[in-house]
Amino acid sequence: MGTCNNTTNVGFAIPARVSRETKPGGTIVNIDGIEVGGSDVVVIAGPCAVETQEQLFETARAVKAGGGRILRGGAFKPRSSPYSFQGLGEEGLKLLSLIRKETGLPVVTEVMDTRQVELVAGYADMIQVGSRNMQNYPLLKEVGMCRKPVLLKRGMMATIEEFLLAAEYILSKGNEQIILCERGIRTFETSTRNTLDLSAVPMLKRLSHLPVIVDPSHGTGIRWMVPAMAKAAVAVGADGLIIEVHYNPEKALSDGSQSLSLNEFNQLMPDLKKIARAIDRDIF
Amino acid sequence: MGTCNNTTNVGFAIPARVSRETKPGGTIVNIDGIEVGGSDVVVIAGPCAVETQEQLFETARAVKAGGGRILRGGAFKPRSSPYSFQGLGEEGLKLLSLIRKETGLPVVTEVMDTRQVELVAGYADMIQVGSRNMQNYPLLKEVGMCRKPVLLKRGMMATIEEFLLAAEYILSKGNEQIILCERGIRTFETSTRNTLDLSAVPMLKRLSHLPVIVDPSHGTGIRWMVPAMAKAAVAVGADGLIIEVHYNPEKALSDGSQSLSLNEFNQLMPDLKKIARAIDRDIF
Amino acid sequence: MGTCNNTTNVGFAIPARVSRETKPGGTIVNIDGIEVGGSDVVVIAGPCAVETQEQLFETARAVKAGGGRILRGGAFKPRSSPYSFQGLGEEGLKLLSLIRKETGLPVVTEVMDTRQVELVAGYADMIQVGSRNMQNYPLLKEVGMCRKPVLLKRGMMATIEEFLLAAEYILSKGNEQIILCERGIRTFETSTRNTLDLSAVPMLKRLSHLPVIVDPSHGTGIRWMVPAMAKAAVAVGADGLIIEVHYNPEKALSDGSQSLSLNEFNQLMPDLKKIARAIDRDIF
Amino acid sequence: MGTCNNTTNVGFAIPARVSRETKPGGTIVNIDGIEVGGSDVVVIAGPCAVETQEQLFETARAVKAGGGRILRGGAFKPRSSPYSFQGLGEEGLKLLSLIRKETGLPVVTEVMDTRQVELVAGYADMIQVGSRNMQNYPLLKEVGMCRKPVLLKRGMMATIEEFLLAAEYILSKGNEQIILCERGIRTFETSTRNTLDLSAVPMLKRLSHLPVIVDPSHGTGIRWMVPAMAKAAVAVGADGLIIEVHYNPEKALSDGSQSLSLNEFNQLMPDLKKIARAIDRDIF
Repeated sequence: MGTCNNTTNVGFAIPARVSRETKPGGTIVNIDGIEVGGSDVVVIAGPCAVETQEQLFETARAVKAGGGRILRGGAFKPRSSPYSFQGLGEEGLKLLSLIRKETGLPVVTEVMDTRQVELVAGYADMIQVGSRNMQNYPLLKEVGMCRKPVLLKRGMMATIEEFLLAAEYILSKGNEQIILCERGIRTFETSTRNTLDLSAVPMLKRLSHLPVIVDPSHGTGIRWMVPAMAKAAVAVGADGLIIEVHYNPEKALSDGSQSLSLNEFNQLMPDLKKIARAIDRDIF
Repeated sequence: MGTCNNTTNVGFAIPARVSRETKPGGTIVNIDGIEVGGSDVVVIAGPCAVETQEQLFETARAVKAGGGRILRGGAFKPRSSPYSFQGLGEEGLKLLSLIRKETGLPVVTEVMDTRQVELVAGYADMIQVGSRNMQNYPLLKEVGMCRKPVLLKRGMMATIEEFLLAAEYILSKGNEQIILCERGIRTFETSTRNTLDLSAVPMLKRLSHLPVIVDPSHGTGIRWMVPAMAKAAVAVGADGLIIEVHYNPEKALSDGSQSLSLNEFNQLMPDLKKIARAIDRDIF
Repeated sequence: MGTCNNTTNVGFAIPARVSRETKPGGTIVNIDGIEVGGSDVVVIAGPCAVETQEQLFETARAVKAGGGRILRGGAFKPRSSPYSFQGLGEEGLKLLSLIRKETGLPVVTEVMDTRQVELVAGYADMIQVGSRNMQNYPLLKEVGMCRKPVLLKRGMMATIEEFLLAAEYILSKGNEQIILCERGIRTFETSTRNTLDLSAVPMLKRLSHLPVIVDPSHGTGIRWMVPAMAKAAVAVGADGLIIEVHYNPEKALSDGSQSLSLNEFNQLMPDLKKIARAIDRDIF
Repeated sequence: MGTCNNTTNVGFAIPARVSRETKPGGTIVNIDGIEVGGSDVVVIAGPCAVETQEQLFETARAVKAGGGRILRGGAFKPRSSPYSFQGLGEEGLKLLSLIRKETGLPVVTEVMDTRQVELVAGYADMIQVGSRNMQNYPLLKEVGMCRKPVLLKRGMMATIEEFLLAAEYILSKGNEQIILCERGIRTFETSTRNTLDLSAVPMLKRLSHLPVIVDPSHGTGIRWMVPAMAKAAVAVGADGLIIEVHYNPEKALSDGSQSLSLNEFNQLMPDLKKIARAIDRDIF
């Protein structure tokens, strides 16, 4: 069987539940009606952090108008420095909930603490486990017991094997609705924030049945580079994209330098559609 | 002031509370009477994971006899695979507590979950935050509010700047009893498990007032290499070492290939003492 | 001027001759009539090493038939082990010359030794400087004094800055016909041979006026992954691709595991054409 | 046989001629009477580049007085930028030759071009192959046919396996007088110029019979850190050190920021002697 040989070739054993062999047809993750892992490429977009009602709502409306299918926005933010903006917390979750009602866009937001999984799951349509928590095993187990889809981001230092094992932690607790997200790895190169490892997409899709999306915003850290890498991600076979968009990137409290403006987002989407159609998929 | 120029040279700003400028004389961390950061090099040793009473007790007695000053042993284990031994949990903490009474050795053990900080702090003399949780900010804040010393291990792909910022999270919550631990970083080299970055020791000690120790066991992943790297760590100026020792490494449930036998530990200690004395320090 | 700000952003100064500021319209490299850097995406293909007349000729004819515009093939091979096949030397150059006459395909081949630049330039239409020699400065100077186009591959450990400085060495000797080639960098990830850094393409094109191509064969080291990464490379904006093709990959003396069969190459080309057209370029 | 198991453990086959199994007692390299690989730790020191007679001679005399046994100094310099000082060339070799006569110190200097091996070998007592040329195979073959000892520096992103294979290239041409030099590898960490991989020392000495030395100057790129890392290198078991010393580091044309002043060198040597004696070796 083809996959068997591959598992040998990559030099490690593929964990049982995450392996494509257990589900050759692939998994489709359903986020309140939006399917990731099917023929459509799904664009998730929104601000890095929820900052104010105006910022979130204006951005969300533009995401909806531009063809985005899911809204992203952080309420609890993992910041390298304790003195950086840490997010609005539950207030942010409430704002996300409000704009979901208006736009109909399902919402994905990050959880960092096992004690907050229930709270976040009460507001969000999909729970994000961020890069820094990819090997936070108590958190993985907790979202594994949750009945909400999980967006699992690759650790910036995680091998493909470790990434699959992290997903296996969630699967082993019964939650099969997982989307894997490549978001750039740390290398010696410093002209970009991270090195977006697009080869991870075909590799993960071959080894696992889970859908795979790409984050070109964190993957590059550079606004002007996001469109090129987003196009490449669609061409390489990603099932979706997660893109940071802000109604005023220069004033963003977090990651402004990598956020697209509403206008840039609007210009990008038709270009992505052309690439998607060139590989017989669609995007909106 | 000298340090000011250095902070510029490294290319990033040193966070305020962790910076050596705020405490030029350096911090001494006191773990139930054992001082780390003073003139003595302190050896922490013990098994990777607490497995059984016999395993823990025999190993602990040998650590004590050999000159170890603090006992290590994991009750909650962060394992890459959900199917690997996950530790004995509170049962392990109780065993650690028992052998502390017998040997008088203070105990350090890892906490992974914000919900368990209180439990672990009730048994341990020092709380370890492991590599995979170096950027688990809720956990850092929680141990920052704790009144126990914290052993903070460097993430396997964390820069010096990120490592200092992680310590700053703990300091910003009021806990100043922190020991930094270099334990190997992830590089392209695969003949060792990690690449032990001994240059981190002089760098951290120059930039920060916190004591710095080295983990040659995880840093190499190879038993026969531990003694050479332990000697180098003392020579480079580390304030201590944390070494995995097991009474039967071949049968260890976790990390056996990098654990010293009791006999190897006993042979190493006098060699370390010679190096310590060559730089005008002592070790037991 | 826009580029000025970017040069600041990447954290290093762009060398004068290689900088896009000196030639905002970009350079077109002309290899015996084939233009790289214009609107067409140019595919260079052929075997890793020239092995036999039959192997080279059959492969070259298939490359020509499939839409490849330039033939690659190594006569002098840089091999990690002294006991591996080192290439046919001048005999290989002669075979390349013969098949060029038949097919009309210009030929690119590697030079490793300053003493052989004249010899190789006598046979080849473009001279390749391989990854391991990207910082072989005497060789860079020598090809800089040559009147043949140069294909400069990024070192597997080279930053964007070092890559541009290597091109500057060639430019400083008067040769402006240089194509930059991203071919994968070395990272901690081991499931692929290298990590193909596609973000290097938009970065290099923004900082420099030189055309940029991608080598998905060395970039991944895995035959089945080449098509996906080739498509992504076209989508990201590469001016060309260099792909290893072999008439019998299982029996290749070098890099067989990453070489496409003639059939796989034929299937890939129309797919690449679709992507090229989706970004308003063409490919054959 | 013990070594056999180790070769399996590291995940690659050790090339035949470089393997310790072929010469369990180890190789001693003799540089004009100075033995590297024996019980003494040998210090090689001198300026990065030969700049002027005064600079070289003053530095060389201080190296001699301080206990250095071999003089280093570059006449042909591999510089990242074509516009940086490229070395004095043969004029530098002549100056090295003159000061050797006066001080009696054997001289090691770098060769970068196959066409210059004979020239350099005519002046030097040991030929250095630098990091950027570790996989310059024509150069390795050329120095392999030379009758002078070779100092082979590890590439900044070379694995242990590739390093041993590079030495095998030299050995395969008949030259067995090779010293391996760990000089720092490239990692994600940017506070130091490179990450000095001291674990390479015990690893290389276990796998190979060749002597191993350490370059703490390039390994850190930071003057104040050189003493700490030099001490660690002796403690870990290095057979020697190569240290950059300059009579006026602030005015050095190359690598001034990592060069010790004459005074710093003089202060370091007795400290190194103490460490050497703590492991039953000596240093001057």
